[in-house]
Amino acid sequence: MSGGYPKGRIRREDLISAAAVVYGEAGYHGGSLREIAKRAGISHAGLLYHFPTKEALLAAVLERRDAEDADREQLGVPPGLEVLRRFLTLAEHNARHPGIVDLYSRLAAEAVTPGHPAHEYFERHYRDARHRVRDSLRVLADTGELRPGVDPDEAALAFIALMDGLQVQWLTTPSEVDLAGALRGFLQTLLTVPLQP
Amino acid sequence: MSGGYPKGRIRREDLISAAAVVYGEAGYHGGSLREIAKRAGISHAGLLYHFPTKEALLAAVLERRDAEDADREQLGVPPGLEVLRRFLTLAEHNARHPGIVDLYSRLAAEAVTPGHPAHEYFERHYRDARHRVRDSLRVLADTGELRPGVDPDEAALAFIALMDGLQVQWLTTPSEVDLAGALRGFLQTLLTVPLQP
Repeated sequence: MSGGYPKGRIRREDLISAAAVVYGEAGYHGGSLREIAKRAGISHAGLLYHFPTKEALLAAVLERRDAEDADREQLGVPPGLEVLRRFLTLAEHNARHPGIVDLYSRLAAEAVTPGHPAHEYFERHYRDARHRVRDSLRVLADTGELRPGVDPDEAALAFIALMDGLQVQWLTTPSEVDLAGALRGFLQTLLTVPLQP
Repeated sequence: MSGGYPKGRIRREDLISAAAVVYGEAGYHGGSLREIAKRAGISHAGLLYHFPTKEALLAAVLERRDAEDADREQLGVPPGLEVLRRFLTLAEHNARHPGIVDLYSRLAAEAVTPGHPAHEYFERHYRDARHRVRDSLRVLADTGELRPGVDPDEAALAFIALMDGLQVQWLTTPSEVDLAGALRGFLQTLLTVPLQP
């Protein structure tokens, strides 16, 4: 009733949720602020109060996704086998949430252009993901758990690419693609020890 | 001058080229027929004469891309090592043509939804690509050229996914991704013989 802080925060979260749905359906460029406001049951002016620009709203969507992933999978563990297991758990989570995967795939494909407001996010996202996997594979190489001949940089690039490419194929032909299973199979070929204890 | 057949065909090709550029920049949903007509230097009514619907124009763009790929790489060779080499040649070609890769990645990500006019194209495209790679890996298994333990179905799925995922990462951070090199490295791990003669 008062428009105070808790209500404002709820409105903000509602808008981020509505934006994630609209971006997933129509892409970032195809998703208008008017449509997002309508879905959230808020006036266009009300939306602009919380997010003055399309870019600010997109940044909030991406930040929330990362925060949720990090919370759920506790992605901050030190480099090693456990990091790879957490990526698999994330893939299993994604396989139960096609809407999130759809949003991510569409934005990643749109944001390849340097001018796109999510471009720097995805540059950083890919670089961070590659480095986390590479550092983990290096640790495994030191303990003899990496298959001889596997290059940590090349394998990290392939792992992240495989994750992305599988998502699009899985969304297109869900009954023919085992999202987490294919990733698990690939990871296991890199190791001399069982991935799962 | 007369609006006869050769001129009509040139106009049609111009429109397909303009559509490929606009879809690559703004996605299919974000690219309007008006913008495409403007790029091709043709009136909106002139565009509608050649392509009465957005869907018809998109189908023409995808068909031309497939025809060009098939012509250039002679993709119709029998299953075997040569098929895998042709996929690599295609990746090398793509690495010189980021605009084509951008268009493909955006449309693939947009078209995961069953209602999208390119959805059936991508279902068929992925299925065909997986089957061609799988059949080739089966031939190599028969001749002892496939590494023991490699499953042709799983490896084919991973290969096509890797190709797609690498494209998006390469477009995002071009200086950090060797598109064809990463694919070549992965293919070589599947084989007991050198991929290149």
